[in-house]
Amino acid sequence: MKIYDFALAPNPRRLRIFVAEKGLKIPTEQVDIFAGKNRTPEMLAKNPAGGLPVLELDDGTHMAESVAICRYLEGLHPDPNLMGKDSRDQSIIEMWNRRVELGLLAAAGRAFQHTNELFKARLKQFPEYGETQREAVTQQLQWLDAQIGSKPFIAGDRFTIADITAEVAVDFAVQMAGVPMDPALNNLARWHQSVASRPSAKA
Amino acid sequence: MKIYDFALAPNPRRLRIFVAEKGLKIPTEQVDIFAGKNRTPEMLAKNPAGGLPVLELDDGTHMAESVAICRYLEGLHPDPNLMGKDSRDQSIIEMWNRRVELGLLAAAGRAFQHTNELFKARLKQFPEYGETQREAVTQQLQWLDAQIGSKPFIAGDRFTIADITAEVAVDFAVQMAGVPMDPALNNLARWHQSVASRPSAKA
Repeated sequence: MKIYDFALAPNPRRLRIFVAEKGLKIPTEQVDIFAGKNRTPEMLAKNPAGGLPVLELDDGTHMAESVAICRYLEGLHPDPNLMGKDSRDQSIIEMWNRRVELGLLAAAGRAFQHTNELFKARLKQFPEYGETQREAVTQQLQWLDAQIGSKPFIAGDRFTIADITAEVAVDFAVQMAGVPMDPALNNLARWHQSVASRPSAKA
Repeated sequence: MKIYDFALAPNPRRLRIFVAEKGLKIPTEQVDIFAGKNRTPEMLAKNPAGGLPVLELDDGTHMAESVAICRYLEGLHPDPNLMGKDSRDQSIIEMWNRRVELGLLAAAGRAFQHTNELFKARLKQFPEYGETQREAVTQQLQWLDAQIGSKPFIAGDRFTIADITAEVAVDFAVQMAGVPMDPALNNLARWHQSVASRPSAKA
């Protein structure tokens, strides 16, 4: 098994944290997205959608989409459980994972792509639209703070894949999309400190 | 059990088709997104993210995010299987479902939101950006045609949730986002005719 990875991108980091939380060691190969190496004919044969990460199985099968790869690994290595023990639990966790991914992480991605120089040559940028996405990120952070409330973790009382997505999304929003964390968001700050102190956060 | 639904929106339709394919009958209540009824305090108490569909369980629990709701129903009613029988199968299907959702359906949504008058009062529109999203939809349709190739269904040899997402995405792109289906895309046309002829397509 092998993972095609890129250290600077958010979706590969989701998988690296998941792998670390599972206590697994899977070899990785870096594929530089900024240099377009994810779109070589060789990589497109592995993942025609062009994204990272990609998991390569020993039989030559390739799997893409970080959450789909996580689900495969969850099946192989059920403990610690990160995606739900029965279908009800799985659904609640998937709901939270999707809320954070489609709300916060996606908005941070659009803010980054439409305002950062790195993307100037890659897509038609609309910086003013990018600013509206920064505002959306700010709103999503406020929303997440309210949703966390006094809960220890995003989906309830234990660490799950929804915390991984939220951790990656918050870090990406602050470090890459240029949206500061409002220190008044106490619940979010407490939760973030808790997940950032786990060994997996360095993955 | 009850579903809060909106006939004109793509995500509620994904769930309706899923429910129809399972042969289930679940009562629905219409919530008019265009009139903002999904954002009343009453609905936000059920789904604080404000989206539809929402599944209400008999014990008062609410679940949101169409795919998460589908996963719950898949657990309760395993046949016909629409989301994968083991973790490998589940991952492949989830990969295809996400590719279509995050590529095609999301781009069609942005094209619609940034070019349609319905959204004028609801968000700051960037019509020129909306046009780039229409172009992205056109490219995604070409990509999907190539990926379908001679396969009968999106994720392989049987109908799955990935076909539901693709069916809803293609119909939304054509009918709501104003992107015509290129008749030269033979594989896509054959596949679309096949899924559109299923009784669930009317759901």
